[in-house]
Amino acid sequence: MRLEEDAVVFLDQRRLPLEEVEVRCATSAEVAEAIRTMVVRGAPAIGIAAAYAIALAADRGEDMSSADRVLRESRPTAVNLAWALDEMRDDPSREHARRIHHEEVERCRRMSAHTAALLSPGTRALTHCNAGGLATGGYGSAVGALLAAWEGGVLQHVWVDETRPLLQGARLTAWELEAASIPHAVIADSAAASLMAAGQVDCVITGADRIAANGDTANKIGTYSLAVLARHHDLPLYVVAPSTTVDLAMPSGAGIPIEERDPAEITARFAARNPAFDVTPAELIAAIVTESGVHRAPFQQSLAGAVAA
Amino acid sequence: MRLEEDAVVFLDQRRLPLEEVEVRCATSAEVAEAIRTMVVRGAPAIGIAAAYAIALAADRGEDMSSADRVLRESRPTAVNLAWALDEMRDDPSREHARRIHHEEVERCRRMSAHTAALLSPGTRALTHCNAGGLATGGYGSAVGALLAAWEGGVLQHVWVDETRPLLQGARLTAWELEAASIPHAVIADSAAASLMAAGQVDCVITGADRIAANGDTANKIGTYSLAVLARHHDLPLYVVAPSTTVDLAMPSGAGIPIEERDPAEITARFAARNPAFDVTPAELIAAIVTESGVHRAPFQQSLAGAVAA
Repeated sequence: MRLEEDAVVFLDQRRLPLEEVEVRCATSAEVAEAIRTMVVRGAPAIGIAAAYAIALAADRGEDMSSADRVLRESRPTAVNLAWALDEMRDDPSREHARRIHHEEVERCRRMSAHTAALLSPGTRALTHCNAGGLATGGYGSAVGALLAAWEGGVLQHVWVDETRPLLQGARLTAWELEAASIPHAVIADSAAASLMAAGQVDCVITGADRIAANGDTANKIGTYSLAVLARHHDLPLYVVAPSTTVDLAMPSGAGIPIEERDPAEITARFAARNPAFDVTPAELIAAIVTESGVHRAPFQQSLAGAVAA
Repeated sequence: MRLEEDAVVFLDQRRLPLEEVEVRCATSAEVAEAIRTMVVRGAPAIGIAAAYAIALAADRGEDMSSADRVLRESRPTAVNLAWALDEMRDDPSREHARRIHHEEVERCRRMSAHTAALLSPGTRALTHCNAGGLATGGYGSAVGALLAAWEGGVLQHVWVDETRPLLQGARLTAWELEAASIPHAVIADSAAASLMAAGQVDCVITGADRIAANGDTANKIGTYSLAVLARHHDLPLYVVAPSTTVDLAMPSGAGIPIEERDPAEITARFAARNPAFDVTPAELIAAIVTESGVHRAPFQQSLAGAVAA
């Protein structure tokens, strides 16, 4: 992502990894559309994109309050967008936008090092969606932490949730990990639990779109699911995000606006691990119902009776 | 699914719901291939298919022990396949195969009624994969229970996990529920947890591929994940399956063979609900890492410090 003389230029994240295509946005409205359609995505990255759009708008003599409004409404959940627009209000210069970009990447490097220091040698981490360089304007938050852990020699393997429906994990995170030569495998989102039960996951590491004052964290659909699963398997969940993602004005997660996107979003397919079944321990089942009736624990007795009947 | 004079005929489940195409298998080996490639799928259904294949093989004068072996090895997890082959060994007649089919559907009707009786009026159930008429030779196990509950006036809505990677929920269960005019919405598998947290799910109902003697249950990848999530949200998980799915010779789930399928399995897209994010309560997060350091609970203090720094 970069600001040129007459445009903000993005690598189109919708078409990765099959094609590396740039999209040029010549107006702030075009940047807003690129954010809305996810040409550029990731909370820090859309904040940087908005900063560049404001700088472009100022140079072009656009109506600045209209530019601010259209950008601010382009996506609702990530707070970085509002943060960057607030930052740019008093100084809509190109230098300011570039400084925001630079500082965001620096934040990524620092929090990544902090996170890597939490991990033990041989860590097998599971991540969801994409919180890499593409999502943050460079280096990455969750993926940045994985890069730092890999460089530090403590990372052994990364499980990448494919992340339905837009497959940011399969498309973007796997692509970034491949580029860094970090061992990884893409899995169906629903396979994470059985890998945890099999003792093949040591921690969950994700980014965030907005963190409320009490720590409640909005992130890609499925993060909450992983959090519950990690707790059940006694694994830590680490959320890696710059402070620009923290919204102290939001007391808790209850007030964070959750975007509902078009049901028809596109699918794709990629190399993956693909176990077709998993095993649910009896202890988690309220009843097994066969034609002979409703069977409850202890199943050892009730099922034997069911089959004998 | 039906046995004709010279073939076992299947509705190709891989092409539903876009196309309704029949596949004719003229030999037991062709039926085994149809099971392997999931032209026909669902534990009870592949048992019935194997019974028909044996009847066909007997009429054609095939080597019966070879037919048995090839069918038995076509898929590893569902025990109904081995059960049906064992049943057919002493009487490989067409009448016997048809009786197995008829009795399996009768079992479905009975266990569906048992399950419906467990549900309270206004139930919003969540189901995974497809355990409907397609999967059982008629009526269905988990979907059968939903049909019975709908007919009994206690079912309000069904959440249908799309069920990656082959999307049996989005393709088959949604198709069956639509045919029965039961209100439903397809969701990304990873969205189930946030619906539970939002109080929009009353119970989880699934089928099974094999149930061990202690009640451990193998079912489509993602079922275990739902089980953990249901427990966390204090919701019951009901497993609905015929007794032919119970394997008393298997002491626990640890010994059940889990199929690993081709990573390149096909995707597709369908109408769906599509929330793009969810909220993870702070209570489930081990640490939030920003550029200023590792923040732990109470986040109210640590995050305020992070942003002020």
